[in-house]
Amino acid sequence: MKTEYEIIDEIRRKRPLIHCITNYVTANDVANMILAAGGSPAMADGAKEAADVTSICSGLVLNMGTLKEETIPAMIDAGNMAAAQGHPIVFDPVGAGASGFRTAACRRVFEEVPVSLVRGNVSEIKALAGMGNLGSTQGVDVSGKDRVTEENLEENITFAKEFAKKYGIMVLMTGSIDIISDGEKTFLVRNGTPMMARITGAGCMLDGLAAVFLAASPYKKDLFAVVLAAAAEGYCGEKAEQKVRKMGAGTASFRTYLIDSVSLLDDKELKEGMNIEVC
Amino acid sequence: MKTEYEIIDEIRRKRPLIHCITNYVTANDVANMILAAGGSPAMADGAKEAADVTSICSGLVLNMGTLKEETIPAMIDAGNMAAAQGHPIVFDPVGAGASGFRTAACRRVFEEVPVSLVRGNVSEIKALAGMGNLGSTQGVDVSGKDRVTEENLEENITFAKEFAKKYGIMVLMTGSIDIISDGEKTFLVRNGTPMMARITGAGCMLDGLAAVFLAASPYKKDLFAVVLAAAAEGYCGEKAEQKVRKMGAGTASFRTYLIDSVSLLDDKELKEGMNIEVC
Amino acid sequence: MKTEYEIIDEIRRKRPLIHCITNYVTANDVANMILAAGGSPAMADGAKEAADVTSICSGLVLNMGTLKEETIPAMIDAGNMAAAQGHPIVFDPVGAGASGFRTAACRRVFEEVPVSLVRGNVSEIKALAGMGNLGSTQGVDVSGKDRVTEENLEENITFAKEFAKKYGIMVLMTGSIDIISDGEKTFLVRNGTPMMARITGAGCMLDGLAAVFLAASPYKKDLFAVVLAAAAEGYCGEKAEQKVRKMGAGTASFRTYLIDSVSLLDDKELKEGMNIEVC
Repeated sequence: MKTEYEIIDEIRRKRPLIHCITNYVTANDVANMILAAGGSPAMADGAKEAADVTSICSGLVLNMGTLKEETIPAMIDAGNMAAAQGHPIVFDPVGAGASGFRTAACRRVFEEVPVSLVRGNVSEIKALAGMGNLGSTQGVDVSGKDRVTEENLEENITFAKEFAKKYGIMVLMTGSIDIISDGEKTFLVRNGTPMMARITGAGCMLDGLAAVFLAASPYKKDLFAVVLAAAAEGYCGEKAEQKVRKMGAGTASFRTYLIDSVSLLDDKELKEGMNIEVC
Repeated sequence: MKTEYEIIDEIRRKRPLIHCITNYVTANDVANMILAAGGSPAMADGAKEAADVTSICSGLVLNMGTLKEETIPAMIDAGNMAAAQGHPIVFDPVGAGASGFRTAACRRVFEEVPVSLVRGNVSEIKALAGMGNLGSTQGVDVSGKDRVTEENLEENITFAKEFAKKYGIMVLMTGSIDIISDGEKTFLVRNGTPMMARITGAGCMLDGLAAVFLAASPYKKDLFAVVLAAAAEGYCGEKAEQKVRKMGAGTASFRTYLIDSVSLLDDKELKEGMNIEVC
Repeated sequence: MKTEYEIIDEIRRKRPLIHCITNYVTANDVANMILAAGGSPAMADGAKEAADVTSICSGLVLNMGTLKEETIPAMIDAGNMAAAQGHPIVFDPVGAGASGFRTAACRRVFEEVPVSLVRGNVSEIKALAGMGNLGSTQGVDVSGKDRVTEENLEENITFAKEFAKKYGIMVLMTGSIDIISDGEKTFLVRNGTPMMARITGAGCMLDGLAAVFLAASPYKKDLFAVVLAAAAEGYCGEKAEQKVRKMGAGTASFRTYLIDSVSLLDDKELKEGMNIEVC
């Protein structure tokens, strides 16, 4: 594993432009998170320009929240352009399993675009893999029985690993413990706080962070960049929670402090704060 | 009136999933407000999945801001699914009266969906009732002559009551004094602060709160749950304003503190802070 | 130059309603910024009502971010209605140059709508003027070579001036130094901070501010109102940055403090804080 580079330095030096085709609920948070990390967001989901915008970027996020049917071709065009350029593609099957249309759309994009990384919770990734039943997802939240715990950790690691291996991709399966795998190597990230589930967009913002970390990495298919992105958001969540408690604040302040912390993060602090494990 | 239950406890225990078909301006605020209260938002407005997403939720918000024509069938499908399941439907005729298209669309949804609660300002509800003239709405704001004051309070109470009675629904007519009626019982909520009109989304966030309060209530058509939702937002607005003044802060901080306060609210504080009146 | 009026007082007295056809990434920020200044936002981009909504407003913003093809006719209808009523129209060619579709759409709206003010960075305005090459824009950011510096300032002033003169409009070309011209008179605004480029929406929020300043001005085509809007946002950015540094905060807090500062600004403070220059 090549871990010698300073990823946040790389991001702030290269300032990668990330094309995000994402949902209108959290688009502002995603844009601000990418900027906080040191990247630059470009958000354009019109079918007539998606591929063109992708072509001037160095990474792509395809996020299925608030999906409209007419956006699917834009995603596929953009995905193929990013693939042709060898740029990282982060795919987030938001709410896969919540409706037949959504599950089918997620599978279609996943089949037609050679994505680099799938980022989702256990329920969503199971639905994408054809292992979930309709309605097993609680909207955009993981269903109770799919929640990652110490008890089902081994089972979930095996699932993530096999999923990654089968499709030749990287996977970032988020939960109280994040599982990151490319089918060969597997990491756990134990950063984070339950407060991240009390704001909207923690997952969508991580899509953006993962894309910017991958785009800035000097290596192709750099699994460790994904590990660092997950650790960065989780660690900054922990810092934000400490500040919330200290200030007697609530969930909206938590969102502000989370993005603040990413904007103030450097490689030294990330290395000290990250809580990662090799499986 | 059954008031013995602890509504916020109920919400945090049940964590109701609320399907919101809402506008892109305040969707993020609405999602964060629902989460702050203890619910979970699902936002999906595609015609091909609206009803399916509703079917896994326990409440529905239909908000007409930034309305697109193609969203109307999605709203009607979702509304009928929620009705078939006996789930509460909050309808917000945002900007009714601001254009002929918008007024007609609001009336169409209102006619085709058996909504539980209409939430709007006096101008919007008058436009919905066919009593307003085009342009009587100042955009999404109540027009000057429709503003609720102590002087026109009786008249507005009568209007709200008759509107609710005529359609067999609940109404939450917001203003400096909120009027809540089901045609039989009528309540006033005197919580709140003018600062709520200096941010976007106070009304939209209340749509989300009302839906989550209704979805968590052990009773059907629970008017008092609507009263509590209005009191909760108004009281948290008062707290947010106090903090803004103490900190020398402005309107963006007010928004943050408002959502913060809801995330920190419990039933005991709500009961002490609410300023309600039975008519 | 008529500078004797108190613009912020005018805004808070008249509370101008501004119709914004803008992007879903920063729509919430734009609405909150307009409210912070003392105006009121109306956001409706449906083709069937755009002109009607414009007709009850006193200013219009046309912002090309997250552009969809079907929104172009809505923009043109709304633009023509605003022009017929003699209301100010602010046009923001977001990302012009980033795709052929986008550049063509920007030019089409610019040709068909008699805009009052174009607000953009150097790259975007060059693309609009047919002087940029496709891809010269770094997404929504100015490209490196187009960045305004003391060295290329004269050249950029000349460009802005000629662009304004050619089309008979006002131009607000933003960068580290803002250039405001109507082809006859030209001003520089030296307020602002690089931190504004670390959040999304600083430009979009300025579109909204410029529209509300123009709508509240007692004069038609009031170039000085645009200068004041740019100075107001820049000065409030400086104040926000000071607070961020004092509090050890980050970029999300900066966004909050920026809007806060506008909500607390008055004419006296603006006059003392603004850093403007007549060319």
